[in-house]
Amino acid sequence: MIAIDWGTSSFRAYRLAPDGAVVDTRSAQLGILAVQDAKFVEALESQVGDWLSAGEAPVVMSGMIGSRQGWKEVPYAQCPAGLKEIAAGMAEVQWGSDRRAWIAPGLSCRDAQGVPDVMRGEETQILGALSGIRARSAWICLPGTHSKWAQIEGGRIMHFTTYMTGEVFAVMRAHSILGRMMADAALDPVAFQSGALRARERGGLLHHLFGVRSRGLLGDLSHDDSAAYLSGLLIGHELASIPRLGGTVYLLGAPQLTDLYTEALKGYGVDTLILNADSAVTGLFNLAQTRAQG
Amino acid sequence: MIAIDWGTSSFRAYRLAPDGAVVDTRSAQLGILAVQDAKFVEALESQVGDWLSAGEAPVVMSGMIGSRQGWKEVPYAQCPAGLKEIAAGMAEVQWGSDRRAWIAPGLSCRDAQGVPDVMRGEETQILGALSGIRARSAWICLPGTHSKWAQIEGGRIMHFTTYMTGEVFAVMRAHSILGRMMADAALDPVAFQSGALRARERGGLLHHLFGVRSRGLLGDLSHDDSAAYLSGLLIGHELASIPRLGGTVYLLGAPQLTDLYTEALKGYGVDTLILNADSAVTGLFNLAQTRAQG
Repeated sequence: MIAIDWGTSSFRAYRLAPDGAVVDTRSAQLGILAVQDAKFVEALESQVGDWLSAGEAPVVMSGMIGSRQGWKEVPYAQCPAGLKEIAAGMAEVQWGSDRRAWIAPGLSCRDAQGVPDVMRGEETQILGALSGIRARSAWICLPGTHSKWAQIEGGRIMHFTTYMTGEVFAVMRAHSILGRMMADAALDPVAFQSGALRARERGGLLHHLFGVRSRGLLGDLSHDDSAAYLSGLLIGHELASIPRLGGTVYLLGAPQLTDLYTEALKGYGVDTLILNADSAVTGLFNLAQTRAQG
Repeated sequence: MIAIDWGTSSFRAYRLAPDGAVVDTRSAQLGILAVQDAKFVEALESQVGDWLSAGEAPVVMSGMIGSRQGWKEVPYAQCPAGLKEIAAGMAEVQWGSDRRAWIAPGLSCRDAQGVPDVMRGEETQILGALSGIRARSAWICLPGTHSKWAQIEGGRIMHFTTYMTGEVFAVMRAHSILGRMMADAALDPVAFQSGALRARERGGLLHHLFGVRSRGLLGDLSHDDSAAYLSGLLIGHELASIPRLGGTVYLLGAPQLTDLYTEALKGYGVDTLILNADSAVTGLFNLAQTRAQG
C-alpha cells in the first residue's frame, strides 16, 4: 500500500509491504499550500506515479489534504472515535481511468459549553501510536504550533483540546515588544523552568507575558534567557490548563519539543513517556487494514 | 508652567496658567523613537522654544522620555506611591545657559513572588485622575496596548498589574492564523460579549484562542465576528485575572476602549465610571505644585 501524510507545508509518502514494513519513502516541500490551482492529482503523480503504475494499492492519505483547501473536504469524525470510526469516515477520490485513494477524516469534539475543537492529521498519528500506550486510560500530548492533548481510553480518543502555544510563542517573539529583548541564545533550562513554574502563580497569562519585559527592564532576566523564559511560560500555561493532569503523559512529536515538555512536566510532578514520532505511517496502515476488514 | 506628555510615539505639550488652566497646546508625532541621535533638546526647542524664551517655567515631563531610550533614565519610584513620592523622584535636565526641566520617574512594584511590574507615564495620568475618584479604595484601569490595573487607596497607588491584552490582540490579528479568518467589520457587541464570557470557562487562554479558529471552521463564528470575539476573549481573560474584582472600576483611556471595557465589566457584574482621559496634564500640574511646595 501507499501511505501519505500530506500537510499544510510538507508531503511524505511511504510504500509499505503487506506486513506494514516501510520499503520506500518519498518526501517533498509540497504541502497543500504549495500546490497551485488545486492540481493535487498532478502533485501526487509527480511524487509516486511509478509506485501507482506498478499497481501499489490501496492509497491512504491524511492531514490537511482532507481540508477545505485540500483535494476534497472530508467531514470531521466525532469523538469518541477509534480506528473503526475514523476508518468509516474516510472518503474516496478517483482520477485517471482506474486510480483511487482514500482520505482520512479529521476529528472534532465539543466541550461542555458546546465549543468545538478540531484536528486533521494528528488523529492518524495518535492511531499509529496507540500500540505504545499500555495504560487503558492516558493523556497523549502532541506538542507543536497547535499543541493537542487527547484523552485515550480503551484505544479510542475520548476528547481532545488544542492550545496555540507554539504559534503564540512564534508571533510574540517575532512581532511583539518582547522579541526586541531576546538574543538568539541556546535555550537555558533554568530560565525555561522558571517560566514554566511562573504559570502556576496568580496573575494570568496576559500579565505573565508582560513580566518578560518588566523582568528584563529591571535586570532580573537577561536577553539570553528571555526566549527560554517565554517558552516556559507558555508551555506552563498550557500544562496549568489541563484538568486532572497526572499519571503518565505520553508525548508524540519532534525530539526538541518532547524534551521541553518532559522538563516542564517534571516541574509539575508528572512523568512522561516518549512515543515513536513516525506514527502517522502506522496509523495509515492501520486505517487501511480496518477499512479492508470492514 | 509647561507640561509635557512625551511617549514612545507622540509628543504633547501644554502651556498652563498659574491656576492650572490650559492656555495653549502643541502636539506632534515626535515620540522618543522619532528623535534622531538623542537630540531631545533640539526636539523640545523646535516645539515649545517660543514658550521657553518667554520665560514659561517650570517644565515638567512624563512618559518614555524618562526611560533608558529617552533624554535621561529616571529610576522608577516604588509602590506604594502618591504625589509626594513621585514628585520626590523627579530628575532635572539642563541645557543652554539657563534652561531646565523636570522628568517624572516611572513607577514599579513587585508581586508576592518578587516579580516586578513597571509603568512610565500612566502614573502621571493616574495622579491627575485621582480627584475624580470619590471612594477611598478603588481599582483604576487604563486599557490599551499594555493595560494597567492600579489599586488606589487614600490617594496613593498601592500596587498595579500590567496585561499585554492590546498587543496580543494586535499581533494575533496581524500575524497568526486567526487573522486570516477575520474580516474588517464593525465590532459586533454580541460576539464581543460571548468572547468575554468564554474567558470564565475552563480551558485557559491558549486553548480559547484556538477556539476562534475551530468555531470559524465549523461555522459557529463568522469572519465578520471573529475579531470582536477575539477582542472579548482577551479582555475577558484580563478581567478574569483581577483578584477580588468588584466595587466600581474607574476607567481611564480612549473612549472606544473604555466603552469596550464597560461592556465586558458589565458582563462580569461590575460597575464602571469613566474618568477624564486628559488627566496627564493635571498630573503634571500637580507634580509641579507638589515639587514647589516640597
